Amino acid sequence: MKLLRVGTAGAERPALLDADGVLRDLAGVVPDIDGALLADDAALARVRAAAESGELPELDAAGLRIGPPVARIGKVVCIGLNYHDHAAETGAEPPSEPVVFFKAADTVIGPDDTVLVPRKSVKTDWEVELAVVIGRTARYLESHEEALAHVAGYAVAHDVSEREFQIERGGTWDKGKNCETFNPLGPWLVTRDEVADPQALGLKLWVNGELKQDGSTADQIFPVAEVVRYVSQFMTLYPGDVINTGTPAGVAMGQPEPKPYLRAGDVVELEIEGLGRQRQALKDA
Amino acid sequence: MKLLRVGTAGAERPALLDADGVLRDLAGVVPDIDGALLADDAALARVRAAAESGELPELDAAGLRIGPPVARIGKVVCIGLNYHDHAAETGAEPPSEPVVFFKAADTVIGPDDTVLVPRKSVKTDWEVELAVVIGRTARYLESHEEALAHVAGYAVAHDVSEREFQIERGGTWDKGKNCETFNPLGPWLVTRDEVADPQALGLKLWVNGELKQDGSTADQIFPVAEVVRYVSQFMTLYPGDVINTGTPAGVAMGQPEPKPYLRAGDVVELEIEGLGRQRQALKDA
Repeated sequence: MKLLRVGTAGAERPALLDADGVLRDLAGVVPDIDGALLADDAALARVRAAAESGELPELDAAGLRIGPPVARIGKVVCIGLNYHDHAAETGAEPPSEPVVFFKAADTVIGPDDTVLVPRKSVKTDWEVELAVVIGRTARYLESHEEALAHVAGYAVAHDVSEREFQIERGGTWDKGKNCETFNPLGPWLVTRDEVADPQALGLKLWVNGELKQDGSTADQIFPVAEVVRYVSQFMTLYPGDVINTGTPAGVAMGQPEPKPYLRAGDVVELEIEGLGRQRQALKDA
Repeated sequence: MKLLRVGTAGAERPALLDADGVLRDLAGVVPDIDGALLADDAALARVRAAAESGELPELDAAGLRIGPPVARIGKVVCIGLNYHDHAAETGAEPPSEPVVFFKAADTVIGPDDTVLVPRKSVKTDWEVELAVVIGRTARYLESHEEALAHVAGYAVAHDVSEREFQIERGGTWDKGKNCETFNPLGPWLVTRDEVADPQALGLKLWVNGELKQDGSTADQIFPVAEVVRYVSQFMTLYPGDVINTGTPAGVAMGQPEPKPYLRAGDVVELEIEGLGRQRQALKDA
């Protein structure tokens, strides 16, 4: 299923995109799409039955804002340098174990919402990423099979990054990863059963229509199952938590001088195979 | 005021400790103590009037669990190496600007709840910290005066840290800061009007009755007002967000070999002048 949330920010209603690409209202079936729903097999079964009944009310998609596909996200765990080609372009050695950092859940916005270039930023950069949404509480998972069983589904994430704040201002990367609006997510949460192989997904990102990133999750150093297993050794993952699993090559930081960092007026588009497309206009904060 | 939340985890009720040290029930006045309350001057005035009326029902404190003093915390921002004596004991240069990392809000527990030593941990360490609780949405603050006006109050925080995970496992510090139960908070949120000078607070921490940390916020490299102002340049702070402002010297990592890292069975007690006392027993995860 392709689950989503539509409407004005903070007042979204649950919806699904059916097999024919028609937007259907889920507000009569479940109150929202959040960790509580994703952990509730019976509620998910009700959603599935409603979807298959063909009787869900149709929504008029025209002009309708799409919000983040998950409400009340607890935390966003991010994996750094997780593609061979991206590690190479940054000049970093491929890490021997996953690099973990955080984005605050309050950075999450809808897939087509405005992204704000922070004040005094000169190095705002893009990163298309496969986001994993957790469906069951995960502690000290032992196998890849067990790890995937804790995944509710997948979505497109944009891990917007300010490189000067991230790298040149002391301390950890978090300083450049948590600016307001820095994590567009969606359009859909695609449930795990519809993603046959999370390691075979093409990812693309364009800036002002020009293709900048064109990778595949096949190039991930640590695949999704290992990322989920690994992270669960260090922290507990809860339903509705999100893991951004890293970005392939092609970010501004990896390009020759003058590096083409983002500015107000730029438009970024992102797409992952089967997971939909995002489009953000940039404005000054 | 000293605001707190009492009762079983997830079902706490709001309370206050009055000027005579009597625990009073606030459930008839406000639904909970959270960011929404802290941002609501009228609701806070109702709480204050109820406190001063002397008519709030008394609660029997005997055997009552104390929860974290703030519900629905959005994010916990942490400042590293923020005391001259602690930076020295770790062998680090004093930072030229604040070092920022994150704890997930789901690591927050009550002040006397059990702390879990993570599986495979051999370097679980303690850190007593002054926590700042945000009361108003803070973006790009310009002055120290403006920064303090965005603070709702203060609390004791224990920034439990696994040093091997934090430092020796690649990537950022977050990996050793986010294990389950790693952020005891409370007992109280002491409102800003009751803390005359946040830079003149003694902090102490004992392990199994032995004094290990004995510092003062006067030794902070970046005082509270600067920390809040600085962090607001990189991210938006929301009501109910927490900033842990760093720890003074005396952590296990700073001591001679064999370093006395925490194990199941140990008991840690923490105290900050005017902000109350915590006591945690350690168990294996």
